[in-house]
Amino acid sequence: MSEEKLPSRSDNFSEWYNQVVLRAEMADYAPVRGCMVVRPYGWTLWENIQSALDQRFKATGHVNAAFPLLIPKSFIEKEKEHIEGFSPELAVVTIGGGEILEEPLIVRPTSETIIGHMYAKWIQSHRDLPVLINQWGNVVRWELRTRLFLRTLEFYWQEGHTAHATAEEAEQETLRMLDVYTDFAVNEAALPVIPGRKSEKERFAGAVRSYTIEAMMGDKRALQSGTSHNLGQNFAKAFNIQFLDENNQLQYAWTTSWGLSTRIIGAIIMAHGDDQGLVMPPRLAPFQAVIVPIWKTPEEKQTVLEAANNLKQILAATNIRVQLDASEQKTPGWKYNYWELKGVPIRVELGPRDIAQGTAVLARRDILGREGKINGTALDQVPERVKNLLIEIQAAMLKRATEFRDANISNVKSYADLETIIEQGGWARCWWAGTDEDELKIKEQLGITIRCFPFEQSTGPGVCFYTGKPARDIALFAKAY
Amino acid sequence: MSEEKLPSRSDNFSEWYNQVVLRAEMADYAPVRGCMVVRPYGWTLWENIQSALDQRFKATGHVNAAFPLLIPKSFIEKEKEHIEGFSPELAVVTIGGGEILEEPLIVRPTSETIIGHMYAKWIQSHRDLPVLINQWGNVVRWELRTRLFLRTLEFYWQEGHTAHATAEEAEQETLRMLDVYTDFAVNEAALPVIPGRKSEKERFAGAVRSYTIEAMMGDKRALQSGTSHNLGQNFAKAFNIQFLDENNQLQYAWTTSWGLSTRIIGAIIMAHGDDQGLVMPPRLAPFQAVIVPIWKTPEEKQTVLEAANNLKQILAATNIRVQLDASEQKTPGWKYNYWELKGVPIRVELGPRDIAQGTAVLARRDILGREGKINGTALDQVPERVKNLLIEIQAAMLKRATEFRDANISNVKSYADLETIIEQGGWARCWWAGTDEDELKIKEQLGITIRCFPFEQSTGPGVCFYTGKPARDIALFAKAY
Repeated sequence: MSEEKLPSRSDNFSEWYNQVVLRAEMADYAPVRGCMVVRPYGWTLWENIQSALDQRFKATGHVNAAFPLLIPKSFIEKEKEHIEGFSPELAVVTIGGGEILEEPLIVRPTSETIIGHMYAKWIQSHRDLPVLINQWGNVVRWELRTRLFLRTLEFYWQEGHTAHATAEEAEQETLRMLDVYTDFAVNEAALPVIPGRKSEKERFAGAVRSYTIEAMMGDKRALQSGTSHNLGQNFAKAFNIQFLDENNQLQYAWTTSWGLSTRIIGAIIMAHGDDQGLVMPPRLAPFQAVIVPIWKTPEEKQTVLEAANNLKQILAATNIRVQLDASEQKTPGWKYNYWELKGVPIRVELGPRDIAQGTAVLARRDILGREGKINGTALDQVPERVKNLLIEIQAAMLKRATEFRDANISNVKSYADLETIIEQGGWARCWWAGTDEDELKIKEQLGITIRCFPFEQSTGPGVCFYTGKPARDIALFAKAY
Repeated sequence: MSEEKLPSRSDNFSEWYNQVVLRAEMADYAPVRGCMVVRPYGWTLWENIQSALDQRFKATGHVNAAFPLLIPKSFIEKEKEHIEGFSPELAVVTIGGGEILEEPLIVRPTSETIIGHMYAKWIQSHRDLPVLINQWGNVVRWELRTRLFLRTLEFYWQEGHTAHATAEEAEQETLRMLDVYTDFAVNEAALPVIPGRKSEKERFAGAVRSYTIEAMMGDKRALQSGTSHNLGQNFAKAFNIQFLDENNQLQYAWTTSWGLSTRIIGAIIMAHGDDQGLVMPPRLAPFQAVIVPIWKTPEEKQTVLEAANNLKQILAATNIRVQLDASEQKTPGWKYNYWELKGVPIRVELGPRDIAQGTAVLARRDILGREGKINGTALDQVPERVKNLLIEIQAAMLKRATEFRDANISNVKSYADLETIIEQGGWARCWWAGTDEDELKIKEQLGITIRCFPFEQSTGPGVCFYTGKPARDIALFAKAY
């Protein structure tokens, strides 16, 4: 760890973010432009995210599979023919085993095409439906401006791909999986996301309807944190996914896709972090508690380390993810800073005086300084206290993020209102009946987009602040990552 | 499922294997030559394998991370300069975002180079060592002859990469991880693998010593099922991984790498399968038990399905991975065949007569027919009985595979012996003091290689069967996949 202070979060949010990611050893730059190495601390967070999501996918009837990384170029071209506006930036393999390939291969930017091809083969009858498959993996998109976790050439995600017999089922699935994302974000990541529908301009090319969860970062910009798409019959027609229905009629299937990526790690960092570094939500934290032993003399060292080791084992036995920092070269103060940078929710301080009294000091990461210190917890009560404290911290983080979000969303009734709100960095909530062109114009003028039409709507109809027309939808405008 | 019978395993092992993989829906051919789709049933097996291994990696102090898919071509060339014989067949990305790249990128065939590059950056002092990182991911090698799971262009694996301060530690790590593989293979996959050291000819280019676990398939050919390499200082020198030791002297680190891939799924299929299809080892089986309800009348159907659902819930609650096949279109007989093909260890048959008696019939997958049937198990005893039976089946599968292995390894004292043994399809165990050229000659003549020098050696020295020289090593020769 560098001994320099972190840049201040309020002065330079962007540099603060980069430094936190690097110094907390979440990720590092790879030798290839725009690629990242996810370091063990970052990857452990991702494993915890994966586990929390995977349980939810399985509970809703999904299974995992693995589809190939390499996709024939013709598949992407077929997609382009069928799907207007589909043009991801691609990495192309042209040489294999020393020979120039007859047909170049695309490193998957997303897997609708290859999965569509396989579904066409596997699905024959309505009895084969629904198909509910998810894939955990890596994808590559040739992005120009990159940021660790937020936008990299290669990133990690899950992509669910399902096929259904009816339009209704496909829509239900699309919404069910957005619910899963919302539940995960709110209850695991302490991110009070706003679920809603994307505008036409912002929806996934090839989708009939796209849904999103939008999170507010510490600089009040929005981060799209997960999306779920109802693809209608678009991909089924492009890839010929057909089935015999109950009346023996050939029908195109209705498909969906939904994804959440390592971008969510960026969201967790930017929503919860502070000038000291990361603040990990306890349910996902790689370490939930760190024990810092304090000693001066060799006798103290022995007593303290013995007690610390005992405590570690007891905490681990109660399924608390605990770390003991017994390293010799660093002072306790240095260790406090280090584990604060890493965002560990609870620090357990254990010195000779504590041990003499049979107690330990607990310190909360989310409330720094004296206010967050709990002195004199009896050693045999520590596991119970830590367990409860983790629940308290999780709830407090969600509450704080929700209050911050709500304090920074304003109802807007005029363009002048909108300009003011956006200048202050907030989100604008307003009646909207504009066209795609209107949306584009506002984007060009103020650098904002419609993040979504939130599911939670006001009773309408209202009046569009921009066109003055009667409006049925409330829209959320914001600057976004 | 096709209604046709599987090819006989003894008549045409190779075609039997392909058909089992496809019909049991373990994997399918992808549209790109040599690539595979791992279907949900195959991937669930892989998830169970991953979980069993990952626990062992973490218990031995390793953490996971993710390194990039794309590697600068210069890295591979640097590797070639330093490491004689290193020339994997590569997939090369030459175009990114519509532009020809200045430096082509290689889709990783293995990650020593890029990880070495990062380690050089992260490791400065002996205090940074050891570094014990594993990665789960996909790699691409441009293979010409491919077989599902056994050899495909893209495959899935884990690759451990560690760095140490001393040669001894690196050797210990290399052997520790081979032990982990052996333990996993024997106790989870019921594969009585033989651990040992690779010959010079067969070791990984760049390694000082390579170790392997070798498994005997049902056709008596050997399958290398996991490898662990002591890389000495070779990669550290190529990628400049240096550290200041305790005396403030700059030293090159000692590194290791070890990997186990989806190939192990091929091993499980080929070692345990029979003419009916797969036989899954209970500890890794996607489903450990399947309930097949039997009914004729609508009244029977209701009673039976209710009982079957109850039983399913009770089994699931005792952590047994259970499936209930309540589909209407298929006969019980069809379902028996289907789940036998899928290799589910225990079938629970439940009909009106069983329910009237308050019992169920259990049928073992590893012992087909009457012999493997257990009639009249009281319904409330089924979970306990299934639990114990899974342990019995796991042990029986290991015992059978071990007996088969041992019956097909012969001690060989002359070249004539060797020819006979190999003709019969067995493995030959013999004293060896030959050169690399001798080994190559035998390979050309008989199509066999030294699979390993097993750790379990005879007391020597002996006499080399080939050269007549005094020999210190026992070698295992066999045909291999």
